[in-house]
Amino acid sequence: MATNLQLTEDGRLRHLLTLEGLPRRILTQILDTAASFVPVAERDVKKVPLLRGKAIFNIFFENSTRTRTTFEIAAKRLSADIVNLNINASSLSKGETLLDTVANLSAMQADMFIVRHAAAGAAHLIARNVAPHISVINAGDGRCAHPTQGLLDMYTLRHYKGEFHNLRVAIVGDILHSRVARSQIHALTTLGCPEVRVVAPKTLLPRDVESLGVHVHHNMEDGIRDVDAVLMLRLQNERMRGSRLPSAGEFFKHWGLTPAKLKLARPDAIVMHPGPMNRGVEIDSEVADGVQSVILSQVTFGIAVRMAVMSLLAGSGAQA
Amino acid sequence: MATNLQLTEDGRLRHLLTLEGLPRRILTQILDTAASFVPVAERDVKKVPLLRGKAIFNIFFENSTRTRTTFEIAAKRLSADIVNLNINASSLSKGETLLDTVANLSAMQADMFIVRHAAAGAAHLIARNVAPHISVINAGDGRCAHPTQGLLDMYTLRHYKGEFHNLRVAIVGDILHSRVARSQIHALTTLGCPEVRVVAPKTLLPRDVESLGVHVHHNMEDGIRDVDAVLMLRLQNERMRGSRLPSAGEFFKHWGLTPAKLKLARPDAIVMHPGPMNRGVEIDSEVADGVQSVILSQVTFGIAVRMAVMSLLAGSGAQA
Amino acid sequence: MATNLQLTEDGRLRHLLTLEGLPRRILTQILDTAASFVPVAERDVKKVPLLRGKAIFNIFFENSTRTRTTFEIAAKRLSADIVNLNINASSLSKGETLLDTVANLSAMQADMFIVRHAAAGAAHLIARNVAPHISVINAGDGRCAHPTQGLLDMYTLRHYKGEFHNLRVAIVGDILHSRVARSQIHALTTLGCPEVRVVAPKTLLPRDVESLGVHVHHNMEDGIRDVDAVLMLRLQNERMRGSRLPSAGEFFKHWGLTPAKLKLARPDAIVMHPGPMNRGVEIDSEVADGVQSVILSQVTFGIAVRMAVMSLLAGSGAQA
Repeated sequence: MATNLQLTEDGRLRHLLTLEGLPRRILTQILDTAASFVPVAERDVKKVPLLRGKAIFNIFFENSTRTRTTFEIAAKRLSADIVNLNINASSLSKGETLLDTVANLSAMQADMFIVRHAAAGAAHLIARNVAPHISVINAGDGRCAHPTQGLLDMYTLRHYKGEFHNLRVAIVGDILHSRVARSQIHALTTLGCPEVRVVAPKTLLPRDVESLGVHVHHNMEDGIRDVDAVLMLRLQNERMRGSRLPSAGEFFKHWGLTPAKLKLARPDAIVMHPGPMNRGVEIDSEVADGVQSVILSQVTFGIAVRMAVMSLLAGSGAQA
Repeated sequence: MATNLQLTEDGRLRHLLTLEGLPRRILTQILDTAASFVPVAERDVKKVPLLRGKAIFNIFFENSTRTRTTFEIAAKRLSADIVNLNINASSLSKGETLLDTVANLSAMQADMFIVRHAAAGAAHLIARNVAPHISVINAGDGRCAHPTQGLLDMYTLRHYKGEFHNLRVAIVGDILHSRVARSQIHALTTLGCPEVRVVAPKTLLPRDVESLGVHVHHNMEDGIRDVDAVLMLRLQNERMRGSRLPSAGEFFKHWGLTPAKLKLARPDAIVMHPGPMNRGVEIDSEVADGVQSVILSQVTFGIAVRMAVMSLLAGSGAQA
Repeated sequence: MATNLQLTEDGRLRHLLTLEGLPRRILTQILDTAASFVPVAERDVKKVPLLRGKAIFNIFFENSTRTRTTFEIAAKRLSADIVNLNINASSLSKGETLLDTVANLSAMQADMFIVRHAAAGAAHLIARNVAPHISVINAGDGRCAHPTQGLLDMYTLRHYKGEFHNLRVAIVGDILHSRVARSQIHALTTLGCPEVRVVAPKTLLPRDVESLGVHVHHNMEDGIRDVDAVLMLRLQNERMRGSRLPSAGEFFKHWGLTPAKLKLARPDAIVMHPGPMNRGVEIDSEVADGVQSVILSQVTFGIAVRMAVMSLLAGSGAQA
């Protein structure tokens, strides 16, 4: 089970693969640790020596400059040594299996792997097979999970809205293809958010979505009415060209977040987006750049959250 | 105006985007600061802790290993943390705008952006939109400017020839398509060089070139006669295949720097080239490798000049 | 001669280009130095300050993530600054010659070049032309040499089997196209291994192989009988599609290392492979993952061996 795989026997974080099944205690520990790292980035010397001499590998089986960069910066702020590997044209194309590649990198005495892979479950597979001194962070696997994104969303929510037990949150857009949405839903329910809504056309919702404990809305006006936070999702370009959607313009008309629609939410509601944004498709520029948008704060907090995860993993790994 | 954008209200360097409009005081300050960094590279430990804990982003929208490397080395010698981003296949192809990309990188609390872009004005656009604590260095934008190259040329000239007020300098080759030439002309005239010549066929000269305060020569023998320095330009491969030029061999015959032509310059004249050289096209190998060539010194001084620019920007940014 | 190129006048290591002609004294010095670095990777802070402030360039003219990574980690464990350059799409495509590229990188005051190139002799050519303060490590040039791989194989052999003078070693597979095999043969004979066997079909053996002082076997059962170590080679994918071999399955039947064949070797024989493995082609998974396999130890020791080479080169360079 993923839960057990992620925790040590005495209940500390061992790998970060998914937010599914992760206990509230751990989520809160990560958010609290992140809070202690936020001020580091405001110092003149933006570094702490916590992970000095640790070897962290950014192993990206699919390209994502943005995500790779956030982990690289977080590692450097912790004084770790980070090595970037783009493994598309390399060993794998020479016929080596994923596990042989990972065994090799392990043998270089890495301390941590940050893994991005197009296939769901790749990070789990690696975590199940690494040496005991190595921790794995899932930086996105297929549609499945992207836990540090979910965590930074929780950090941002808590920062602006306080505790979760009286929040009403709407997740809007392409739930079906979004690894971000799944991470958000798991984290929100675990942290005690009493009302999580998913707002999407039927063609962009997974069948079993209600079993996750969310309220389903097929009308955006109803969906975002009176919420404290609107969590927009990115519409993948490839979906727009597919048969599930009429057109980008049509999508924007029904599901794009405009100033008019945002007025239906609470007046102090915040707007979030995992980026990169499609302005004029899922979000209006006026909203994206407006006073209720906390989209760039998400990016800033994302560094602190990744520092928190890395430092907690390094701590448990050293004693494992 | 570019000038104001580049300076703080009290006249310190805020961004380095172009040498156009930059006052002599600033140019001299950069050259003097660079002089203090030249000995660092000759030490056993080639590092100074000036920029420790600063986050510098090498943001390259077009590939240039050579330029990227010089900035990376300069940053590491200053003990900064540098992150390399090649943004061709990444966020921009996902439909994100240039400014959203930059806003995201800013939100990661960068201190400095080094920007290379195929479009003229890209670095200016970014500088106009970054957060107040971030400085931008233009590492080449289209044909427009490449200011650190111009500065290292000035450093090299001053190193070998002393002050500028009694120098005669010839810039030879494809002025029209060269961002280097524009930077050189602006710097030379600002630093008080009394005679700057441009030497090129009519098809490779911009129309307004005389308005920049230079002397135009359409004959190489006349153009380099009695000069103290010959600044050769690179002929872009794509020009050679175009209709503006008969052939590489024909170009070399008329505009290539040979030992015979170099004899027309002053006997102690130096030869410079921004690299990479097309041997046998714009320059003869005997000249490139000869005693009057200071081409490799330009590379060495280029590191010190980039260290100087970064440290001056970090100084003004910290107090801005 | 390569030998002289590799040593200083007073006999210290100046460049590492090939194991051919390198005296036993130097090989032993590298292995002994590596032994002192193995414990570094087991520390909490996996770093020593030996090469602090040194600039090392990973210059890869052909892509090899795995090899690049091992050198990058070794350099970082020595606290050096390492810059990665992939020079395929860059300067060389702009028409710059190999030597101009290298001269430019030298002028940035590098201390060490790690060079990977598809052409045999590229690293030698560079070593012959660099400034006196720069050392060159050959990280693989065509079929010619890959000396750090050969050295880590020797380290691994010595670690598990003690001294070389009573070892019987079999090198099995595609000797003809393997730069690894040549490095191994030179090192083994120099270190005094009394019986080096090459085991391969005639089509995968170089004509002059017996002149290297090895015993040739065209039958695998005979070839590995009673050996202390089986050094498997990787079968390049492109060979499998070529005319020299019937099929991967056929190759495995005759030349793949299976548990049954391994029983013919000494009961305490070890199995090595340079990676990446083609499981089911040259090696059976049961052997690759079995108790006699030391394949992952090779990777671990490879970091220590590369640290040893770098630190010895830096030492001689500083005084050269």
